[in-house]
Amino acid sequence: MYHFTALVTLLAIAFYLFVTINVSRVRSRTGIKVPATSGHPDFERAFRIQANTLEWMPIFLPALWLFAVYIGDAAAAGLGAVWVIGRVIYFVGYSKAAAKRGPGFMIQGVAAIALWAGALGAVVLRLV
Amino acid sequence: MYHFTALVTLLAIAFYLFVTINVSRVRSRTGIKVPATSGHPDFERAFRIQANTLEWMPIFLPALWLFAVYIGDAAAAGLGAVWVIGRVIYFVGYSKAAAKRGPGFMIQGVAAIALWAGALGAVVLRLV
Amino acid sequence: MYHFTALVTLLAIAFYLFVTINVSRVRSRTGIKVPATSGHPDFERAFRIQANTLEWMPIFLPALWLFAVYIGDAAAAGLGAVWVIGRVIYFVGYSKAAAKRGPGFMIQGVAAIALWAGALGAVVLRLV
Repeated sequence: MYHFTALVTLLAIAFYLFVTINVSRVRSRTGIKVPATSGHPDFERAFRIQANTLEWMPIFLPALWLFAVYIGDAAAAGLGAVWVIGRVIYFVGYSKAAAKRGPGFMIQGVAAIALWAGALGAVVLRLV
Repeated sequence: MYHFTALVTLLAIAFYLFVTINVSRVRSRTGIKVPATSGHPDFERAFRIQANTLEWMPIFLPALWLFAVYIGDAAAAGLGAVWVIGRVIYFVGYSKAAAKRGPGFMIQGVAAIALWAGALGAVVLRLV
Repeated sequence: MYHFTALVTLLAIAFYLFVTINVSRVRSRTGIKVPATSGHPDFERAFRIQANTLEWMPIFLPALWLFAVYIGDAAAAGLGAVWVIGRVIYFVGYSKAAAKRGPGFMIQGVAAIALWAGALGAVVLRLV
């Protein structure tokens, strides 16, 4: 069983859900009516934060679980927690200004690519 | 094996694919040319229905499967079926008017959060 | 274990990541500033390629894995490889012109639907 990886998955989903609900909150505050997705810089940044987090979910989640299965639960969960922390920093920075989105993005990117590379290495080792 | 959860997953994907193909259909009908994603309210609603359904897939699918593994196949599939029904109601309502998207959205949201909360509770119980 | 399916999953993620990074590259080249997602046809096509690939990930990945579990690792990986090839052709074509996005799209669509239909058939056979 992969209890720690399951826990990190559920935390990642919860943060992603928060980022998604935040779009609705900023939509109300800025007065951008559904179904428009532009018209106020605060709304557009909130929308891009959510879109970018969504865009990385199909990289992060499969890499996380293949890493967990091929390498181990605790290591996968540790890197997965780094990904979530990077996403929180990205959210806080990008919410303030587009120019402040870099550090959090780097952290989550490195964590996701480490999960991907570790899983790839382990799979290839089993196949050769 | 998780036959019922697998079945609900495939039904959810099929409905999501239908919603995705619907964007192309409404694109043709309203004359909005690729790659534009705005310009006619009917197209924009169809586009937002698909985008919103996509946005919830990384919440729904991992929560569904963790619930299935940690709690049980039949209960996961039952809540998953409620999610699909909520998505169908959301599609029908939002296709008519943005103001009619509420009830279906609530149903799918409650089902997804129930899957998430159940899985979280079960994972935490195993860890303590 | 599903080594070949795992390998194809990691290749699909890598190509999707490439398509995602390509949006940033074309963003720089065309001078479209974050968080805008329109304003230059080259950027809009790169953006739509990534969006469309993202849109199909929640169809492709669950169908791939259910096919692998219910039918077999090698067959799933083979169809999954066809999906990745279709996505590469789609990327190359659509990068040139919106009118050239058809063949790659068809290939990936047929591969994804074959995975879905195979998995559905196998699941239903177990349930009846």
